[in-house]
Amino acid sequence: MGLIVALAGGVGAARLLRGLVQIIQPEDLVIVGNTGDDVEVYGLHISPDLDIVMYTLAGIVDGAKGWGVSGDTFECLETLGKLGFETWFKLGDRDLAIHIVRTKILKEGKTLSQASAELCKMLGIKARLVPMSNDPVRTKILSGKLILDFQEYFVKRGTKDDVTDVVFEGAEKAKPAPGILEAIKEAERVVICPSNPILSIAPILSISMIEDQLKSTDAYVVGVSPIVGGKTIKGPADRIMTTMGLEASAYGVARYYEDFLDRIIIDKADEHHKDRIRELGVKVTTTNTIMKNLEDSIRLARVVMKAP
Amino acid sequence: MGLIVALAGGVGAARLLRGLVQIIQPEDLVIVGNTGDDVEVYGLHISPDLDIVMYTLAGIVDGAKGWGVSGDTFECLETLGKLGFETWFKLGDRDLAIHIVRTKILKEGKTLSQASAELCKMLGIKARLVPMSNDPVRTKILSGKLILDFQEYFVKRGTKDDVTDVVFEGAEKAKPAPGILEAIKEAERVVICPSNPILSIAPILSISMIEDQLKSTDAYVVGVSPIVGGKTIKGPADRIMTTMGLEASAYGVARYYEDFLDRIIIDKADEHHKDRIRELGVKVTTTNTIMKNLEDSIRLARVVMKAP
Repeated sequence: MGLIVALAGGVGAARLLRGLVQIIQPEDLVIVGNTGDDVEVYGLHISPDLDIVMYTLAGIVDGAKGWGVSGDTFECLETLGKLGFETWFKLGDRDLAIHIVRTKILKEGKTLSQASAELCKMLGIKARLVPMSNDPVRTKILSGKLILDFQEYFVKRGTKDDVTDVVFEGAEKAKPAPGILEAIKEAERVVICPSNPILSIAPILSISMIEDQLKSTDAYVVGVSPIVGGKTIKGPADRIMTTMGLEASAYGVARYYEDFLDRIIIDKADEHHKDRIRELGVKVTTTNTIMKNLEDSIRLARVVMKAP
Repeated sequence: MGLIVALAGGVGAARLLRGLVQIIQPEDLVIVGNTGDDVEVYGLHISPDLDIVMYTLAGIVDGAKGWGVSGDTFECLETLGKLGFETWFKLGDRDLAIHIVRTKILKEGKTLSQASAELCKMLGIKARLVPMSNDPVRTKILSGKLILDFQEYFVKRGTKDDVTDVVFEGAEKAKPAPGILEAIKEAERVVICPSNPILSIAPILSISMIEDQLKSTDAYVVGVSPIVGGKTIKGPADRIMTTMGLEASAYGVARYYEDFLDRIIIDKADEHHKDRIRELGVKVTTTNTIMKNLEDSIRLARVVMKAP
């Protein structure tokens, strides 16, 4: 089987990918992870979306939350709180081990790509998880006159602000991490995971060389809609799409990706959008897209790999 | 009351200092801490002797061990072990918070002095804890043809090697941290804490400007012998003194410090060394020097402050 490239955000992507690695050779999978959410906390470099994917593929993710390490404790964080630091970014003690190691590797002068590769090896992950760029690209949320860092918007303020615009600081200067353009070019299939189009996939696309390569690749590009029945499974994608002037629906997602999308997998609940999506020149598969367990993930991954 | 300067190593020093801060204004106390044992683990800067003093003065030390944070857990360390890292240096989860903060402050371009001052403030410590130098001085243990880093000798190999020499790498270039020379000069009293002379106090003295200032100060210099009845309370001082050709006794300690020592406090068990010590020109006080609890520490601190 040929190379598969997946563009991935957080929880939704991780759940599809845990199925995908069961039905293909994981070595054939290149996951391009969003690093627009990366943040430095207490001097440690944290890549939340890469971590969610890593923890999920390593089988150590907190299944209920979808992020963080299963059974984790928060002794270090509580101590930092007692020392007077803010503790809204919930770093568990086991979780911290990953951030400490990543920061150490970066401090040694290596790139985020190298750090991710080393961490994946330590965790026994065979798929290649590549950050979208080794250069800093930071997602900034605009809410009226307010500019928020992504984690400030997402975690600290609990996505309560109305998003009026999203900016990817540094994107114009950022280069794709090594191997990404080649992988998209040579891939048999590119999968756009069911992640927030504006907050998780758009940061990846904000690196123009990646978007250009997606538009010109011969690979079959399949997306999975994260919007089901006009709602997101998790997170604020529906609200953000609306405030950004997009339709919060499977159609809106297909439209957002129409420049490079060959097919979109939508939920059965969204069957009524089929014809409108087809008018965009995008093929449609309807299935049950909700992934509650590994079996759901494998089933959806099979649909993604089967079409057309 | 005037300024008091204490030269301090780890557990023994911390136990005396917890008594001292009860009987003097802690703001009048400048603690010069040994940083020869400092080590970088997982990219974090760790100052074990400064930490023992800080944790003890902050009342959060693990009382039974004398180091580490009381009730600490080891989830992060265990995870690092699973990732393939060595875990012989026992970093607790709460303990880690301190190392993360210190490393963060250093990364911001501040000095170890500044980091220590900030940490002490966060922990509510009013005494001034100053690292002996902001420059790296690293204690290296020679055992025949083997050169060991201090923590390798002390923790990893459990002090099993015969020490044939001790070298303080970087000492010749290291400057005392700001304020130390002035404090020793202006002090009313300098206390040499009951720490390992060769492994904890010698690194401080290896910075020649500090030793010279001790020799020329008008302050009354009082030491407390860490050797009781020819044995150390804790640690390998007795063995090391012997292999280094010193007498492992209260006399041997007095002799080691004779160039600047006015008085030594020795245990009642060592009363028979009194006359020999006096022949060195060092005055002697005998008392019970074992500190099992805070009351013992306060009582010994009173003896230290009262003499002559």
